[in-house]
Amino acid sequence: MARIQSKKNSTKKEIIMEKAARLFREKGFGAASMRDIAEALGVEAASLYNHIQSKSEILQAICFKVANEFISHLEEVERDSDTTLKKMENIIKVHIRMMLDSYEYVYISDHEWRHLPEPYLSNFLNQRRSYRKRLSDIIQEGINRNEMKNIDPYVAVLTILSAISGIESWHRSRKTITAEILESNMVKYLIEGLKK
Amino acid sequence: MARIQSKKNSTKKEIIMEKAARLFREKGFGAASMRDIAEALGVEAASLYNHIQSKSEILQAICFKVANEFISHLEEVERDSDTTLKKMENIIKVHIRMMLDSYEYVYISDHEWRHLPEPYLSNFLNQRRSYRKRLSDIIQEGINRNEMKNIDPYVAVLTILSAISGIESWHRSRKTITAEILESNMVKYLIEGLKK
Repeated sequence: MARIQSKKNSTKKEIIMEKAARLFREKGFGAASMRDIAEALGVEAASLYNHIQSKSEILQAICFKVANEFISHLEEVERDSDTTLKKMENIIKVHIRMMLDSYEYVYISDHEWRHLPEPYLSNFLNQRRSYRKRLSDIIQEGINRNEMKNIDPYVAVLTILSAISGIESWHRSRKTITAEILESNMVKYLIEGLKK
Repeated sequence: MARIQSKKNSTKKEIIMEKAARLFREKGFGAASMRDIAEALGVEAASLYNHIQSKSEILQAICFKVANEFISHLEEVERDSDTTLKKMENIIKVHIRMMLDSYEYVYISDHEWRHLPEPYLSNFLNQRRSYRKRLSDIIQEGINRNEMKNIDPYVAVLTILSAISGIESWHRSRKTITAEILESNMVKYLIEGLKK
């Protein structure tokens, strides 16, 4: 029977998560089965269960991995003594980079979190609310310090995160521009729009 | 047997489209049935077929209604002798207004167009590509005229349209800000970000 091959620097669980993320995006979490995941990996479903208990466990692992990366980075940024504009620039860059380099994971975490079972669902939503609030706080501080124009912080965060999630359509497009041009221009647009 | 009641200024077909749009958004186009639509209208499925032939016909009507509204407005804007910034401001405002006032329709047209049958699908995608190209052209002209900063027009259009489609999350939220504050702040952010 075929075994799940580990790649350099990837555990077997990570390999399963990668294949699953792609399938969840293409078919939707509901429609993709453990059998589909096993097939995509070229192994029997039984050997999947040595590494992972359920589809739901994979979804949890993906959603919380993405959330953790954003939160750890935000904590670093909050500790820095940069200007608020520089802080927001760093945050925007990390979001864009994640959309470019870990597209499948971010997509699943953005679109399929509804399928998380409790208590993971509530926990995930609380973290997301708190994360957005902390971004709002940085923008509010930027306004108070006169570094940013007077703009509703909730609307600014909504605009930034939604604009970045639109990179989905670039992934599906004919890629007439490179990832680098996409990144630098979107950062420029979103930062100049905040600047006083 | 109950009959579909027309409201003032709405044809029966429009009433069916409205109920269907809501169901398509909540359940997804694939999962919502003609029977569900009839039930939501409080009529027998048979009486639906007096007004509409299929689920797909409703989807076509919704997608092309939304596309037509955007295109007609764009044609007006293109004819105007405004600055390019004013033109983009008008376009951004119409997109935001549509997301606020015709949310279900715009949502279906943004998310469920994949289910259009041919030749409607290709036609819809061609129109969408051409529409985005015409917005890019206005931005390119703004850069040439020195009214806008030098930004990749494709990225600018992607940023604008994605930011506006993020109003979805406002619809699902606790509405701590009004539609007016949302609109004015998002217009400000997106226009100031373009301005030279």
